[in-house]
Amino acid sequence: MIILGVDPGTGCTGYGFIRTPSTLVGCGTIRPPSKATLEAKLLFITERLGELISEHRPEQCAVENIFHAVNAHSALILGHIRGAIIVTAMRLGCDVHGYSALQIKKAVTGHGKAEKEQVRKMVLLLLNLQDQKMAIDSSDALAAAICHAETSRTLDRMARMESGR
Amino acid sequence: MIILGVDPGTGCTGYGFIRTPSTLVGCGTIRPPSKATLEAKLLFITERLGELISEHRPEQCAVENIFHAVNAHSALILGHIRGAIIVTAMRLGCDVHGYSALQIKKAVTGHGKAEKEQVRKMVLLLLNLQDQKMAIDSSDALAAAICHAETSRTLDRMARMESGR
Repeated sequence: MIILGVDPGTGCTGYGFIRTPSTLVGCGTIRPPSKATLEAKLLFITERLGELISEHRPEQCAVENIFHAVNAHSALILGHIRGAIIVTAMRLGCDVHGYSALQIKKAVTGHGKAEKEQVRKMVLLLLNLQDQKMAIDSSDALAAAICHAETSRTLDRMARMESGR
Repeated sequence: MIILGVDPGTGCTGYGFIRTPSTLVGCGTIRPPSKATLEAKLLFITERLGELISEHRPEQCAVENIFHAVNAHSALILGHIRGAIIVTAMRLGCDVHGYSALQIKKAVTGHGKAEKEQVRKMVLLLLNLQDQKMAIDSSDALAAAICHAETSRTLDRMARMESGR
């Protein structure tokens, strides 16, 4: 199964595709022109993401929840970006799941208060990419995808135990 | 020209289509199931809006800006809805414009601090629908469309004056 992870951001949106259990398919960042209007930025991000989804055909998508917005204004802007990403992924056939930063960090590093750099290192380790360079926004997106893969696996195991298989 | 006006809301999103200068084409509200997840609500709203856009084929879309959110959490939720609406309209070929509540009220009633009921009455009057009942969410959406029609007309007139036509 291919899982897309997305880390929505005002200036830069990170994305990462993995094939379960733990193979990197592709990752990168989407940076709309900084002086563009919010509407133009939303179109830029969703068109690029739409192309990537059409290319890699993920079935599932994990998007980091936003709770850390500094104020109502930045919450509003980040909300626009996250909402635009969610409907784009759903329209293209992905099942979308939200995870908190704490859940993602815990799934990848074992503790919910890990630094971004620790997350990046663990993402590289888990995907067997020790020697690669990777932007923090990409590794955060891949961390969301890994978190969803872990969560799905656990839920699947629990369901099988319950049904006695 | 057909203009779509949208009043994004968590529980209820109003929409209204007008043909310029001032003919009602259609209006109503979109109410996703209240217990649905945010993701499911976004899909519900954008799928319905997409059908309506495909039916009425507006060239322009006016969406009320959100500045009045009570706190960061409600700003985040409203941001998701507005962002999802904007990319849906843009993807289907609409040129999207944002207007503040003040701009919309001023365009429709002549003053920026009008009550919603005054806006509703003026919308009915301007669209020659005095005897009709109309939900406040629909009239707010139509008010945004009327505001955009007015603004476009003014800008067009100014451009013609400048070019000496």
